[in-house]
Amino acid sequence: MSSTTDHTTSTPHLPLTRESVFSAHARVKQHVHRTPVLTSTTLSNLASTPQNTSALVGTEFEGQAPARPKIKLFFKCENYQKIGAFKARGAFHALSRLTKEELARGVVTHSSGNHAQALALAARTYGIPAHIVMPTISTPSKIAATKSYGAHVHFSGSVSEEREAMVEKVIQKTGAVLVPPYDHPDIILGQGTQALELEEQVEEILASERGDGDGRGGLDAIIAPLGGGGMLSGIATAMSGTRTTVFGAEPSTDGGDDGRRGLAMNPPTRIPSVKTLTIADGLRTPVGIIPWSVISDTNKVRGLYAVSDEQIKAAMRLVLERMKVVVEPSACVGLAVILFDEGFRHVVEREGGEAGWNIGVIFSGGNTTVEAIGKLFEVGAEEGERAEGTVGKDGAKVAENVAG
Amino acid sequence: MSSTTDHTTSTPHLPLTRESVFSAHARVKQHVHRTPVLTSTTLSNLASTPQNTSALVGTEFEGQAPARPKIKLFFKCENYQKIGAFKARGAFHALSRLTKEELARGVVTHSSGNHAQALALAARTYGIPAHIVMPTISTPSKIAATKSYGAHVHFSGSVSEEREAMVEKVIQKTGAVLVPPYDHPDIILGQGTQALELEEQVEEILASERGDGDGRGGLDAIIAPLGGGGMLSGIATAMSGTRTTVFGAEPSTDGGDDGRRGLAMNPPTRIPSVKTLTIADGLRTPVGIIPWSVISDTNKVRGLYAVSDEQIKAAMRLVLERMKVVVEPSACVGLAVILFDEGFRHVVEREGGEAGWNIGVIFSGGNTTVEAIGKLFEVGAEEGERAEGTVGKDGAKVAENVAG
Repeated sequence: MSSTTDHTTSTPHLPLTRESVFSAHARVKQHVHRTPVLTSTTLSNLASTPQNTSALVGTEFEGQAPARPKIKLFFKCENYQKIGAFKARGAFHALSRLTKEELARGVVTHSSGNHAQALALAARTYGIPAHIVMPTISTPSKIAATKSYGAHVHFSGSVSEEREAMVEKVIQKTGAVLVPPYDHPDIILGQGTQALELEEQVEEILASERGDGDGRGGLDAIIAPLGGGGMLSGIATAMSGTRTTVFGAEPSTDGGDDGRRGLAMNPPTRIPSVKTLTIADGLRTPVGIIPWSVISDTNKVRGLYAVSDEQIKAAMRLVLERMKVVVEPSACVGLAVILFDEGFRHVVEREGGEAGWNIGVIFSGGNTTVEAIGKLFEVGAEEGERAEGTVGKDGAKVAENVAG
Repeated sequence: MSSTTDHTTSTPHLPLTRESVFSAHARVKQHVHRTPVLTSTTLSNLASTPQNTSALVGTEFEGQAPARPKIKLFFKCENYQKIGAFKARGAFHALSRLTKEELARGVVTHSSGNHAQALALAARTYGIPAHIVMPTISTPSKIAATKSYGAHVHFSGSVSEEREAMVEKVIQKTGAVLVPPYDHPDIILGQGTQALELEEQVEEILASERGDGDGRGGLDAIIAPLGGGGMLSGIATAMSGTRTTVFGAEPSTDGGDDGRRGLAMNPPTRIPSVKTLTIADGLRTPVGIIPWSVISDTNKVRGLYAVSDEQIKAAMRLVLERMKVVVEPSACVGLAVILFDEGFRHVVEREGGEAGWNIGVIFSGGNTTVEAIGKLFEVGAEEGERAEGTVGKDGAKVAENVAG
């Protein structure tokens, strides 16, 4: 989508600063949910338990003592956001920045996923037309969901040139303003607003637990999924200049770790084209140009970590079975890094020390189906024998979930 | 289990009154979670949408105009309770009523489900031994979960005489006090405590929404699953004398509606032996003797309704996919009655009128696995075509979940 992101608006872009994210939050908070932050004793205990040495075999940590990080997890539940994903934030913010004249022309995007529904919802709320270009092969439920928000659905072929040609046609016919899914400052700033809420909510929870009413500065780190990068760059922008460290998490399967590989190049270079078959289907897109400018700044994003589909599935199982919360696979990469990436765990042990770290984990979305869950886990071991085997380090607190 | 419920304790039983439930709550609230109450605009809208006339074909309502009830749903999330189900309440209450001498002897029960884990957790908390008699054929994960709380697991055959013989053996050897899963006043009163919280939480939510700080008397009805009847009789006891009407929900498959059939007899008669293969596996037990004395009192329980396994699955799909909350099938029978039982819906239309009813729905537990979810829904239509088809009456608010 990066080649068509120059949608012409008359309003100058806000700079990518923490202050701009505060401005964005003031504009969107009336339209989006302040989603809950959940904690889980079970998962925090799991995260604080060293991995089995057998899990390190074949890695650079083989033969070393496993890291012993102390971790308390805070889950920002954007799966409970409107349309079931964080994308509502960026869409509402983008619309809030348009002039009346631009709004009257309507908006257009191409997407078959959460961004399409987010833009359709935001447009309906503003009472303006939304044009969504979707591949003809999109599943009927996604088409129906997008139409249910009152959007005009335009069908195209599924390769990007075909989709962009259809977007161009809609723009020429209607004058609609293009709202890209991630490669735009307004989208980035909108997605960043969840970090401000998370920071505040963690402080509220800690203040309540400590009993002294003071939880300031309690959030040590945030880890967020990286696909197109709108969310990760927004969160990094929101937290820049604070004491909270930001990390990104990617799927490693089939080249999905384009961010990590790009950062490892000298100089760091964006890898624009990625095709991947990871189960984390929300993260199959290449990183956008503007997000990359933030993500490749080590003052803003401390590092990127990648996990396998098996690790993502193990994390997803824990969230569904122990926390009883429905998340999509893309939402589980951050938790998978915390549980299974030994490099990350050493960082937390070293820097968190005895006090440990309070880590915010972004549950980015929950749009899946019972059939999709069934398919993901159908090639498993016998029911009843697998949970401990997969994770390999469960304590006694098997089902003592704390949610609230 | 009813034949072995006479566990001898020196403390006289509390009467089954609302006041006794308040006493029980004072004893257990330090040990159990005040689980959250969630609302969902999507599901309340669905519940308030008339069924398709085609859904009434073949029922006594065929050819009639579908009921038009106005319903606002409040979900009491006992799936987020300790051990993942409401059973923790009864177990903690039962232990809180034992003398020091009785506690020292330890406790025993036979169960392979949530009650086993609840009793094991409560015993560990009190620092006393728990003996759990489980069939040898229990799944390894259930055995491991029970052991993880420090319980002594004793294996037996799977027919009830074998299990009871093993319980008797444990009692003779250790002097342990038998804590049955539902057929006991202390268990009933403990399970009833969730209704007091629900009543209070609904009033808090309504007061906050109304803005005038007054939500008193806001809960019009509660619907709860009926298996052994400990929970339903406890909730009915808790609400007796209030303006809140209590209903029970059962699976109709394979004779699971023993409560409903027993009530229809003249005079109403408990049906003590039920074998059923419903997917609502937590509800396969016959109603206990003491629960029946409450449930068959129409001043306490207004009526029992039964739903098919397909209807339970449709409700479960909505909870997982729209609310993003993991519940077990047994937890979904109440919602299924509200959505699909036309008789129930006519009662709400008639009595709720224009103002409608605020209905509390008990999500009794969330102990399932991703494999079990996959199996339940594997014989479905093609992904992407089924959700609207199954429920048949979705509005525009497809994914606007409100949780918290």
